[in-house]
Amino acid sequence: MDIRISSAGSALPGPSVDNPTLARRFGMEPLWEQWIDVFIGTATRHLAVDLATGEIRSSLAELGETAARRALTAAGLTPGDVDVVVLGTATPDKLMPATVNVIADRLGIDGVPTYQLQSGCCGAVQALDVARHMLMGGQCRTALVIGGDVCAKFFDLGVDLRKLPPSQLVNVVLFGDGAGAAVLSADPASPGPVLRCVINRLVGLNRPPGQVLDWFGPVDRNAERPAVSEDYKAIEESVPLMAAEILKELLDAVGWAKADLDFLLPPQLSGRMTERITRELAVDAVPVNCVEQTGNTGNALPFLQLERLLGRMTAGQRAVCVAIESSKWIKAGFAVEKA
Amino acid sequence: MDIRISSAGSALPGPSVDNPTLARRFGMEPLWEQWIDVFIGTATRHLAVDLATGEIRSSLAELGETAARRALTAAGLTPGDVDVVVLGTATPDKLMPATVNVIADRLGIDGVPTYQLQSGCCGAVQALDVARHMLMGGQCRTALVIGGDVCAKFFDLGVDLRKLPPSQLVNVVLFGDGAGAAVLSADPASPGPVLRCVINRLVGLNRPPGQVLDWFGPVDRNAERPAVSEDYKAIEESVPLMAAEILKELLDAVGWAKADLDFLLPPQLSGRMTERITRELAVDAVPVNCVEQTGNTGNALPFLQLERLLGRMTAGQRAVCVAIESSKWIKAGFAVEKA
Repeated sequence: MDIRISSAGSALPGPSVDNPTLARRFGMEPLWEQWIDVFIGTATRHLAVDLATGEIRSSLAELGETAARRALTAAGLTPGDVDVVVLGTATPDKLMPATVNVIADRLGIDGVPTYQLQSGCCGAVQALDVARHMLMGGQCRTALVIGGDVCAKFFDLGVDLRKLPPSQLVNVVLFGDGAGAAVLSADPASPGPVLRCVINRLVGLNRPPGQVLDWFGPVDRNAERPAVSEDYKAIEESVPLMAAEILKELLDAVGWAKADLDFLLPPQLSGRMTERITRELAVDAVPVNCVEQTGNTGNALPFLQLERLLGRMTAGQRAVCVAIESSKWIKAGFAVEKA
Repeated sequence: MDIRISSAGSALPGPSVDNPTLARRFGMEPLWEQWIDVFIGTATRHLAVDLATGEIRSSLAELGETAARRALTAAGLTPGDVDVVVLGTATPDKLMPATVNVIADRLGIDGVPTYQLQSGCCGAVQALDVARHMLMGGQCRTALVIGGDVCAKFFDLGVDLRKLPPSQLVNVVLFGDGAGAAVLSADPASPGPVLRCVINRLVGLNRPPGQVLDWFGPVDRNAERPAVSEDYKAIEESVPLMAAEILKELLDAVGWAKADLDFLLPPQLSGRMTERITRELAVDAVPVNCVEQTGNTGNALPFLQLERLLGRMTAGQRAVCVAIESSKWIKAGFAVEKA
């Protein structure tokens, strides 16, 4: 049974924040801005925290609701048409209720199955895969798939950036908040490209995590352990290789050659990393990126890329999206083809 | 395609803790023990926190690994036979990496898709449903499904119970830690009952959550908001009704009458609540319970019940499991039949 991606939508909190604004807010030298430009290549991002007041502007539920409404509108559907909702995120608003259910309530969706996948950057692909399997099962016709992350609980306005080591400093400029959504349909009359293949593959055996994001409960609030840690060197080394592997695997699965690809949706770690990964993938296809404007928005990214892709695809065109998660090393992606 | 539950296994941390031990540890009167017996009806539970030392004895990953090994052994399989891993939990060890991937690594499982569902008591049923759909998709033959919760980050040994209102006091005796696992198989030669139907249905529209479990990041560690809140009255009112609704829906879906049921796996909120729900469901089937011994172990429960069920089912017998999540109100369950 063919499953189609009917539409996509997104939601980003507040105005975009550029590097000079970020540097001023944290009292950093202009040299730091240049360092971001040269080594990171991310120009702007949207933040759920208001830099001026410290106020939290939007929750994941709010952003997810807005992205979902936009995707539904773009598909010409209403929340009442949705048979199943799937959310992928690393940063749920609360542990319970699951944010997917708060989003469903805000949309007026009820009486349907909902699923929330806990994952880093590959959660969006996992969500697409779970939704696709639910549609293939035959009991659902229309799936609302959402991905997003809000790093507000980790974004410390009080930190003195001049005292941070580069490995932690990079996090302040790398990430952005946001949500994206897509409507998947089992209806053969639905517009939009067919989801030919989805792959989600853990390859973490005996490897230490490249990225750790911890949470605290009431008992261990004052624990000394770091909440975030990253092995940026391992990420830089492994992600391009893993991207090449999963691209090959996706192409093999659908029987396409690199030359058959019209569009490539590469991993969106940072402007520079995305440039480098794309170059090493050596695909002569139009790259679909957003990281320079949005930063790394985690589980929102594939949906932001899909939103940019869908309007541009014409009949017979093919695209592949690649996502790599460095937490415990997951390679994932999907292939779509416009009939 | 028929999907079978080949086996189940479980893991509970440390020795079982009875009510007198709990009362002594928190300096409570013997009256409190009697209150637990009469109003809660949960005699023992296992805790990841060592009551004597405050040390955390086991993580969700450790319990999940042990439960998974036991389920695999019971199915006569090894970790190398597993094609997909799905975990349901409300209390992951960290946000990233997802605990499912840490468990996979500990088991030596690699190169397969993994999914972690964030949910309260219904996450176990959601995990079974996602695994079932992955098997029905045809690319996987054997699924390892795990559920569990560890409340250590919420279990405060320093709290003065005499100052807590009953609505919060109840949490100390209600919950236990643990994990369970099951092996699902698409192999028609596999032993074990066939999973005839799985339902997972959000019914939270315009209803405030019955239970909230929050987490803190480095920025909001010192926030004054409560980490746990419960509307126990709403839970007592709604759960028996929702259990009756989903039981009817499951029976209708598979075309069975109440009289066709040999076993009933009812929700496991507490000894008393489980008794009351079972009575109101009015099914003349053998109830399969564990809550009096384990407490409410959240996402582990359906697996602990399955473990008790599987050895007892004979050819032609039928069972239904009902799970209700009060967070944002989800009714869920499944029906199994031994060929």
